[in-house]
Amino acid sequence: MNHKGILLVLSGPSGSGKDSILNKLAQKDQGIIISTSMTTRQPREWEQDGTSYYFVNEEYFKKKIDTGQMLEYAMYGGHYYGTPKAPVDEWLAEGKTVVLKIEVQGAQKIRDMYPDSVSVFLMPPSMAILEQRLKRRETEDPDEIARRLAIAVFEIKQCTLYDYFVINDELDEAVDNIYSIIKAEKLKTLRMKEIICEVIKDA
Amino acid sequence: MNHKGILLVLSGPSGSGKDSILNKLAQKDQGIIISTSMTTRQPREWEQDGTSYYFVNEEYFKKKIDTGQMLEYAMYGGHYYGTPKAPVDEWLAEGKTVVLKIEVQGAQKIRDMYPDSVSVFLMPPSMAILEQRLKRRETEDPDEIARRLAIAVFEIKQCTLYDYFVINDELDEAVDNIYSIIKAEKLKTLRMKEIICEVIKDA
Repeated sequence: MNHKGILLVLSGPSGSGKDSILNKLAQKDQGIIISTSMTTRQPREWEQDGTSYYFVNEEYFKKKIDTGQMLEYAMYGGHYYGTPKAPVDEWLAEGKTVVLKIEVQGAQKIRDMYPDSVSVFLMPPSMAILEQRLKRRETEDPDEIARRLAIAVFEIKQCTLYDYFVINDELDEAVDNIYSIIKAEKLKTLRMKEIICEVIKDA
Repeated sequence: MNHKGILLVLSGPSGSGKDSILNKLAQKDQGIIISTSMTTRQPREWEQDGTSYYFVNEEYFKKKIDTGQMLEYAMYGGHYYGTPKAPVDEWLAEGKTVVLKIEVQGAQKIRDMYPDSVSVFLMPPSMAILEQRLKRRETEDPDEIARRLAIAVFEIKQCTLYDYFVINDELDEAVDNIYSIIKAEKLKTLRMKEIICEVIKDA
């Protein structure tokens, strides 16, 4: 483990509030970079290309895979989702905290490739509240809501594979909790070897 | 690991500022209890019995050891230091965060007995500053300062055995860092099994 940034994987069911939390985190600390995923799904009404996701077509996505330019990718609800590789490695080399918002299959791949990554599972306070939040997104049709709920159940059952579990009941508290996780991870002795050598070199 | 409190071990050389940090931590959060150690060394001028340490004589301390009432104890600089056992276990059962201020030998014993404990090594910004801080304590004679420095070097070389490494350059920042460690540790999936079961029981 070199003196470099932290790779933080954030997963959580659709409706757990990942985007709101990530926006606030990025505002809080300029050392935190939210990596933008690429997807072949259709944008929702409020989503802009390059902020929530890079929205691309399937042909483009497959070409990225074939040329080894994706860090991870997965098929999820009939669509491709993935993380372009190059910018992540550059940010980490610069010492940034890079946050990847990915689903559970992709998260497992990242844990395998980056054993010193940190993974956080974000949860709504209850299944009932999750269902309410999904229904409030009026652009989604009932079949889509049912499908997302089924996927949510599948994902939630894998939450114990994650290092940390954060409940998004009150937004600012959830942001503060994830920020504490980042600060604590930076203080881990294993990550501080260079600094420790510097401080104790006269001992 | 049951749903109970966190045992946090704080070590650091004399002069690293453990007491100032612990006072502020306890003020910040009523769920944090600073366990008071017992010692046979003489109190310094500003130290009161029951706050910094319980100051006792050697006969009393040995009796505590013989009757199994010490969680850990060690001989250090010619004096006994140790942690009375019963209150620590009671606080943990109540879900409190219990902080033990102990030296490196005792810290290792605690890690062995409580594998889910969390250990933090507190460091001054440099060896030069550590020496300055020790000299500023005018009640100490030069031999005592030299002895404390030698012990400090011995301790610092073992800092990589600790989970976290915190540099006490600016007091409030060091307090904030240790508080973040406590918050993050509480969010570890392994510590949240009961809560997770509650949240996902309808999934």
